[in-house]
Order: sequence, then C-alpha cells, then structure tokens
Amino acid sequence: MTYANDHTALPRTKGAVLRAGEVCFAGSGPGDADLLTIKVLKALQEADVILYDRLVSDEIMALAGEQALLEDVGKEGFGPQMSQEEICSRLVAHALKGRKVLRLKSGDPTVFGRLDEELVAVEEAGLAYQVFPGITSASAAVASIGQSLTQRGRNSSVRFLTGHDTKGFADHDWAQLARAGEVAAIYMGKKSARFIQGRLLMHGAATDTPVTLVENASRANQRVIATTLATLADDLAAAQLTGPALTFIGLAPRASAAALETLKMELA
Amino acid sequence: MTYANDHTALPRTKGAVLRAGEVCFAGSGPGDADLLTIKVLKALQEADVILYDRLVSDEIMALAGEQALLEDVGKEGFGPQMSQEEICSRLVAHALKGRKVLRLKSGDPTVFGRLDEELVAVEEAGLAYQVFPGITSASAAVASIGQSLTQRGRNSSVRFLTGHDTKGFADHDWAQLARAGEVAAIYMGKKSARFIQGRLLMHGAATDTPVTLVENASRANQRVIATTLATLADDLAAAQLTGPALTFIGLAPRASAAALETLKMELA
Repeated sequence: MTYANDHTALPRTKGAVLRAGEVCFAGSGPGDADLLTIKVLKALQEADVILYDRLVSDEIMALAGEQALLEDVGKEGFGPQMSQEEICSRLVAHALKGRKVLRLKSGDPTVFGRLDEELVAVEEAGLAYQVFPGITSASAAVASIGQSLTQRGRNSSVRFLTGHDTKGFADHDWAQLARAGEVAAIYMGKKSARFIQGRLLMHGAATDTPVTLVENASRANQRVIATTLATLADDLAAAQLTGPALTFIGLAPRASAAALETLKMELA
Repeated sequence: MTYANDHTALPRTKGAVLRAGEVCFAGSGPGDADLLTIKVLKALQEADVILYDRLVSDEIMALAGEQALLEDVGKEGFGPQMSQEEICSRLVAHALKGRKVLRLKSGDPTVFGRLDEELVAVEEAGLAYQVFPGITSASAAVASIGQSLTQRGRNSSVRFLTGHDTKGFADHDWAQLARAGEVAAIYMGKKSARFIQGRLLMHGAATDTPVTLVENASRANQRVIATTLATLADDLAAAQLTGPALTFIGLAPRASAAALETLKMELA
C-alpha cells in the first residue's frame, strides 16, 4: 500500500458528522478516492470502527483515521464472507458500546446496497442512524464514456436494475426496455447477459442497439467495452471481465470519449 | 454570506484534476457542501472560470478559488437566464483562451442535466472535456428518509423520470409504475403531480400507495411531506413548496426517520 495519505485538514464546510453510539451507513462511491464525498471522508476520519465491504477500494480505506478499528465484512467479495446476521449484530454491539460506527458500502448504499436489513437491525436495537449517499457506479461509468443517463428527445427516464433479479422481470418490463431510445443501467449483469440479450431481442429490440460494459468504473483498471445487443454475450465472454461491471443498454461511448479511452489503453 | 470557508489543504488523494484549455462538466450535488465529491471540490479550487447554474448553493460557490471568475448562467432559475447558445459559446471561448473551465451543474450532470448540448458544442470546437459525476438529488433525498431506492423482495429496479416529459409517457409505462412495490423518483414533478396521480390511479395503482415529497434535499431548509397517491395533489398544493422538489412514488419515510424529521421541524 504505497498510496499517498497525508491529509491534514478538510475544508471546514461543516462540523463533525458522526455521533457516539450511532451507526452511519455510507457509500464510498465506485472506487476512486476522489469520488468520495466530503461527508464520507469526514466519517472515515472520525469513526471509531469501520465495517467495510470488500469492494471498497484500498485507496479509500487508507483514508481512515488512525484510531479506527477496521473490520472487513467481506460482502460482495468472492472469498469467505460474514453472514448478514453477524454484520448486523456487530453494528449493534459496537454502537451500544458508545462507539462512532461507520458501515461503509461501495457505491451508494441506497442502490442495490442491501441497506434495509442492517438498518432495521439498528432501528430495532433502539439506536440512531444516519445514511450518507455515495456516487453510484452508473453515474461514474456514464460520465467516463461522455454520455448522459437521460437526454432531451431520446429518453426522459432511466432505469437501474440488477442482473440478479432479471429472471423475475415481467414481460412488459422487457417490452419497454426493448424500445428505441430507452436507457438502462444493469448492475451485476455479467452472468445474466445472455438472458437479457435474449429477452430484449425477443421483445423486438434492434440488434444494433448500443450496449456498453464498464468494468471497474472510476478505478485505474477501468475497461470499457462497446458492443451491440447482437454481440453482447459473445463480446462479454471474450473480454473475460473479472471486476464488478455495469452494463448500459442504449448507450455507446461518445466518439471523442471512445478515442480518449483507446488512447489511454494504448499508453497503458 | 457568513459561511465558513477556510479550507487550507485537501487530502492528497491524487493530483490536480483540471487542465488548461479544457472544459470540465461537474455535478455539485443537491446543495449541502459536504455532499461535494473531493474531485469537484478540487475543480472548484483550481478553475480559472466557473459557469454555474442558479441551483448550485451559495455555500458551494463559496468554496471556489480566489482566482476564479464566476459566471451565473442562471439556468433552472426563475429569473432571466442565459440562452443555451450563449452558455455554449462562452464555454468554448474561455477554453480557447487556455483557461481551466468548470461548468458546474447542480445534482449530477448526467441525470436531467442537459449535459449533451453543451458537451457537443465543446466537442465540435475540437476541445477536450471531462465529466465529473455528482450526488443526484434522489440519492440524497432517499437517504434522508431512511429508505433505499431498491430493496430485496420489493423492487429490483428503480426509475428516475422527469415530470416535464411525463405527458409523452406511453401507457404501459404508467401501467408498470402503477404496480405494487414499484419505486420511481420524479424530478421536477411539482407541476405534473395531478396528472401523474391521475394516470397512476387510472392504471390501477392503490390509492394508499405511499408518496413522499422532498423539497430542497440535503439543504438546511429541507422539507419532507409524506402522503399517499390519493392525497398527493392536495397535500402538495397545501404545502406551497417553493424550492426544487423530488417526488418518490412507492416510498414512505422510515418511521424512525420520520420521527427525527418531525423533531427537527419542531426544534427549528
């Protein structure tokens, strides 16, 4: 860990953000430490104990205060992980001891963050809590390809969905996503790519509908794969992604952004 | 403007973020300066010129570097505002002079931010650009009511839409939003509340579907109005909201968060 970490002072925009005996649920954003909010950075510096998911990046964990006890709860990782019950019981136990407890999740805790189970446990223990938002990976990923999630004349709504649950999607969901101009950001969609491709084509989506995959959004090892609905599953298999990936249906990288991305890859 | 602004050093997470002769499109988040990302805070400090929308809060503009020329382009305000053409031409002119140009939009520039028109102008002038995401108001607002945008067993997708364009919504969009468990965040939905209420009820939504309005999300004057689909339009009219408001269909404030909110209001 050679990451620079000599923060000395924060802009005094407001005072301290954590309180003793409370649990703060916060989003770290997708990985780039510069995408932390000031509020979450303050929480990292103030916390007595930080329970963090494996997807929270090392460069972000390096910003934790020296006093902080760090507990890797492993969620969203591929190795052994702590049970949800155990995470909840630790959050409560730490807060009951009067500690400033930070529960740090990658991305935004309110978007596919499984926030509710932990929040209910804290609530049922009679403890106070706060929720601090984070940059969700769709937002960082779409910025990196020079596109908007919504655009006048193209789409007046955007949908975030998870690949995990797509098999339970109703037919009219698919019919709607299949329309020209629709934009959707699919989280954790790698395993379901072929299923999603099949459903959209079955519901009349154009084979040349642009699809963009962004792996490791905002991180130094970010990769962008521009494809179409026709070639999505094959291109995804060929790319052998290993990191978390976001799939945009209906968006291609902006030409100038794509050129920049190519340049970066050639220089790397 | 009595807002404290004695920032002296940022955590050296990375180096400078702006480059001379380029335009950076960035999101300020919904208003609370603590919800700025470190990246956008750096951009505020580095910029030679900042073109900002009226909804960017004073406490955020107070964090701009002393060297920065500040240009209020007025967008999204109610007073006189600069034309889109004029904004584009200024962005290009400043960048062509070799300045570090920051185009600061409230919220996230990729979510109902009208980013594309300005980005295309910069691209057509042969200039380089970057896009920095921001916390979108739905994310800050949902955190403040202790809820998630998605939740296992309730909804595996969430939709962001704008009230401005809802009249162009297809009937099956309404049918889908009307289903139990669906969650949507409606931006700029004050004027269309009665229309949206009517469409959802017509498509079979339950009259007791929870609806929550969050005005001035994340700001000191944030207000939360918990209502239902049956009483949405009347409660909205009674509340006489004057600030930007977000409407959540399918979400009520968590009981403990609601208690906190009431307490805050009583103390205020």
